[in-house]
Order: sequence, then structure tokens, then C-alpha cells
Amino acid sequence: MATLKAPNQVSHVEDAEKIKKACVGWGTDEKVIVSILAHRTATQRKLIRLAYEEIYQQDLIDQLQSELSGDFERVICSWVLDPPQRQAVLANQAIHKSKPDYRVIAEIACCDSAEDLLAVKRAYKYKYKRSLEEDVAAHTTGNIRKLLVALVSSFRYDGSEVNERLAYREATIVHDEIRSAAEYNLEEVIRVLCTRSKPQLIATFNHYKDISGTSITKSLKGEPANEFLAACRLVIRIIKNPIKHFEKVVRHAIAGLGTDEDALSRVIVTRAEKDLKEIKKLYFNKNNASLEKAVANDTSGDYRDFLLALLGAEESV
Amino acid sequence: MATLKAPNQVSHVEDAEKIKKACVGWGTDEKVIVSILAHRTATQRKLIRLAYEEIYQQDLIDQLQSELSGDFERVICSWVLDPPQRQAVLANQAIHKSKPDYRVIAEIACCDSAEDLLAVKRAYKYKYKRSLEEDVAAHTTGNIRKLLVALVSSFRYDGSEVNERLAYREATIVHDEIRSAAEYNLEEVIRVLCTRSKPQLIATFNHYKDISGTSITKSLKGEPANEFLAACRLVIRIIKNPIKHFEKVVRHAIAGLGTDEDALSRVIVTRAEKDLKEIKKLYFNKNNASLEKAVANDTSGDYRDFLLALLGAEESV
Repeated sequence: MATLKAPNQVSHVEDAEKIKKACVGWGTDEKVIVSILAHRTATQRKLIRLAYEEIYQQDLIDQLQSELSGDFERVICSWVLDPPQRQAVLANQAIHKSKPDYRVIAEIACCDSAEDLLAVKRAYKYKYKRSLEEDVAAHTTGNIRKLLVALVSSFRYDGSEVNERLAYREATIVHDEIRSAAEYNLEEVIRVLCTRSKPQLIATFNHYKDISGTSITKSLKGEPANEFLAACRLVIRIIKNPIKHFEKVVRHAIAGLGTDEDALSRVIVTRAEKDLKEIKKLYFNKNNASLEKAVANDTSGDYRDFLLALLGAEESV
Repeated sequence: MATLKAPNQVSHVEDAEKIKKACVGWGTDEKVIVSILAHRTATQRKLIRLAYEEIYQQDLIDQLQSELSGDFERVICSWVLDPPQRQAVLANQAIHKSKPDYRVIAEIACCDSAEDLLAVKRAYKYKYKRSLEEDVAAHTTGNIRKLLVALVSSFRYDGSEVNERLAYREATIVHDEIRSAAEYNLEEVIRVLCTRSKPQLIATFNHYKDISGTSITKSLKGEPANEFLAACRLVIRIIKNPIKHFEKVVRHAIAGLGTDEDALSRVIVTRAEKDLKEIKKLYFNKNNASLEKAVANDTSGDYRDFLLALLGAEESV
């Protein structure tokens, strides 16, 4: 469930005017910007952006970029983007890192429905004049390329039917391959992971455990550390339980010295209208502390206020 | 351009009623069925099918299947299906042959736009409760599986921009791979063929010819005959020039003793509203005879009349 708190009735024109007023003149009134944008749904934000463009002949995101800075600027611009556009931008950034971040790609490809992924791929083509697949393929190599290209190309069946016999058969195939594969050549694993529906895969993972006596993720632990196997494990974990995955990402983003603001912003922004409530609950159970408190301790200023608002925090955190 | 001749204004209810009348009573009046259905666009046929369902509580295709038989029944039922549904059925039949017919899969994946392929994949999921990719993957093996799964998973950029430097670079990569690959392990060839846009690929093929002195299709001729290489060549030919591909398919379907009715029906039905005029023209140039004449000589009865009508033949062929 979502954590976002948004009023049902809002005037997009008034919102746009208030944001403009907060941006012009001496300094910017970040409080106003947070108080509006952190409490509007994706559709409402889209309408504000359209109204803004119409009234001021200026893109709201350009305006915010020129007025704000740092993590706060990045998170708020990401939030204002239409969700598929946002995912497309996140994917593009992940691909163009010196070492492409397979985790973001896997999240985008596996967390939501086939139609959601498709919307991201359409937005990607529209913005970058290339397909997501070709960019992923051009910036990765070897086995990890095979996995990621197949993942972003997937268009899984979304129904709930499970063919148990097929699940058993494919668990056997995958088990044999993992046991005997030379140099991690896991073609069947990739094929099954990137084409079957999620309920079907979960049945396959269960049969795998029965056959092998150990979970498929444990079986894919290679020594020395291997990025491809780590990516396979990540994909399996996301398919099994995306909430658990996101809880882990925010936990790691917050833990230790320093904060991984990109990861923290990404999870909060992309899940606030989906399942952030469940992520928060799991975080609380695992860490004996609320995610709001942890975020409040680890961040500061407008960035902090904005994240807390998206987390649905009461005023008195 | 299309060969289909259809009136602008038709009454779908009247059409449905006339077809019903042609189906009931002693014998079936195939002439009426041909005279109506062979002269209606995809949208008009869809509306006739809806009207038929509403008036008679019966699916028009079920009705036609029970009244007609043989090649005529198959071609007319294929024609009445919505184009993406039809492609989904053709793909499913191709996959489930004792030896999956990679040619039909490649045609469906490469001849039309990314959005057209997507519509087929949606229709496939809806009808078969599985994704097209998973069925292709489950019924093929080895290199041909890698190629076909990547092909049906593709969602190419449809714009006309070409990056010549990239085309040159990838032509070099592909050239090196083809020259040195052991056991036809052509991963880069598959990656490039299945992710890049068609104009980009054509630029790459041109650079390939400059680098190698021979065309990429010629370079992919392996001895002994190899199905995977044949499939790669087919994909390249379809991307370069789908008209040429379809002309070849109908030519082979007609040539020699016996006729390949499935292939003949498939090309005529799937292209009649797209580019059958160009296919006919090329056929005439290559064979010094009109495709209508060739079809008229090689087929008979209502099947013949129907194909000729779709080919836009004058009454006096």
C-alpha cells in the first residue's frame, strides 16, 4: 500500500501558481514546494506540470532544477517525472555508470508488471531515441549482458495459473545446469528467469528446493564473488519478494557511515505510491526502529522533509 | 500498398445477416461469403464479427469452421481474425510443429513495427495464457533458441536516425565474430540483429560489405547446411527487404509440383492490407507472369476465388 497522503480535490492551476511564487524573488521557498508536491499523486503532478507549462511556458522540472540543488533537487525532479519516464531516466543513469548498476535494471525489469515495464521501454525510446535493450546490450558484456538484455526484453504472462508439472521439470533442468555448468554458463537459468510468469517461477523455486535440499539462491553462491551470479540471485529475490528486496536496499543505504542518497531516494520515490507501507513495516520488524526515524537521523534539511512527507510521517517525527 | 478492395460504407449488421443466410439451409453459399468478407477491411470484419455474435449469440469463426472445410476454411477463418490474433495463432502453430518453423516466427518478429509485434504478444498472452517468448524458448534449443527468443522479445526503436560510427563499429565486431567464431557462437550477431533499429542495421550491413568485401548474408553461409545460420540469413533478408522475402515465399509456395497452401494463404492474408501490391509487382518482374495468374493456375474452387479477390484481381483472370 501507498504511503503518499494526497487530497482528492486540488486545483492544478493554483498549485502551479503557488510553486511559481515560491520560486521567484529572493531565495526559494522550499517549504511550499514540499508541502504541495509531496502530497500530490502521479496524475495530479502531471496536471500541475501541464498547467505550469501552459501558464509560464516553462517546464516545471527545468524551473525546479534551476532553483534547487543537491539531493533535494534530484529527488524532487525524479518525483515530478511521470513514473515510466522516471524509470527510463533511472535505467539510463544506471547503464551509463562506469560500471553499469545491474541492480537498478533488475528492479525496473522485475518489480512491476509486464505492462509497467513496457511503459518504461516506450518512455525510454521516446526520450533517448534508442531502445532500452540496445543500450543495456551495448554497455554490458558476457553473462551479465545475456541476463540483463533478456530481463529488460521480457513481457511475462501476468496471470496466476501455475503448471506444476512444468515447474518440476524446469526445476530439474535448472538444478542439473547449476550443478554441472562450466564457467557459469547458465542459459537455462536465464531462459526460465526471463520468460516465465512470476507465480510459475515461484513454483519452480519451490520444486528446486525440494530436489536440491537447498534454495536456488544459495546454490548460486559462487566463489570467488561473481557479479553474474549475484545478479541472478538478486533477480530471484526480487521475483520472490520485492518488499524484502526494497527493505534491504533502504537498510543498506542508511546503515554505516554516510548515506547512499541515490538508493534511498529511488526506493522512496518509486514505491511511495505502491508498497512503501509494507516496506516500512518490514523495516520496523527487522530493525526495531521506524524507517521514518532512521531517515530523519540520516538526512537533513528540505531533502529530509521531503522524504519524510513521502513516507507518510506524522509532523512530529 | 494494399490490394484489398473494400467499400467505405457498409452495414455490418446486413453483412452478418447475409453471411448467416449463406450458412443456413441446404449447403452453404460460399460465393456470398467470399463476395462479402474478401472485400472488407480489418475493422469492418471486426464489426461484422461483433454484430454476428450479438445477433446470433454465435462466434462467426465457429460458424464458418462448421460450414466450410479444407484450405478455404482455414484461409477465411485466418482472415476474419483480428490481425494481432491471427499472427498469434500463426506463431503458435509454427512453434508447435514437430520441427518449429523459424521462418514464420522471424516474419512475425521482423516484418512490422515494434508496436505491431507487441500487439501480437499481447494477443498471444491473452489467448494462450503464456508469453510468446516462453513458448518459443520451450520448443527450441541451442543457437536458434537464442536467436528466436531475442527476436520475439525485441522492441526496436522505430525512428529513422542512424549512427554511422556505431554502425561501422558494430560491423567490425560482427565481422570479427563471424570470421573467428567457433561452432557458430554468434552472440554479437544475435545481439545486434535483435536490438538495433532497422535503419541502423541496414547501415551496419552496408559497412559490413565495405569491410568484408562480401555481404553479411553470404558470410553466414555455412557448410554443411546449418539451420541457425539459415535463420540468421533469413532475419537479415527480412530486415533489409520484407517485400523481397514475401515474393520469395509465394514463389516457392507455387513453384514445382503441389502447392504450399499454408505459406500462400499466410502471405496473401497477412499482406493484403499492407504491401501485397509491391509483392505482386516484384513477382511479375521476377517471373514474367502475374501472381494472380499463377495463383489461379495453382489453386481451385472457393479457395482460389477468395485468394484472387484478396489479390485485387479483376473478375476475368
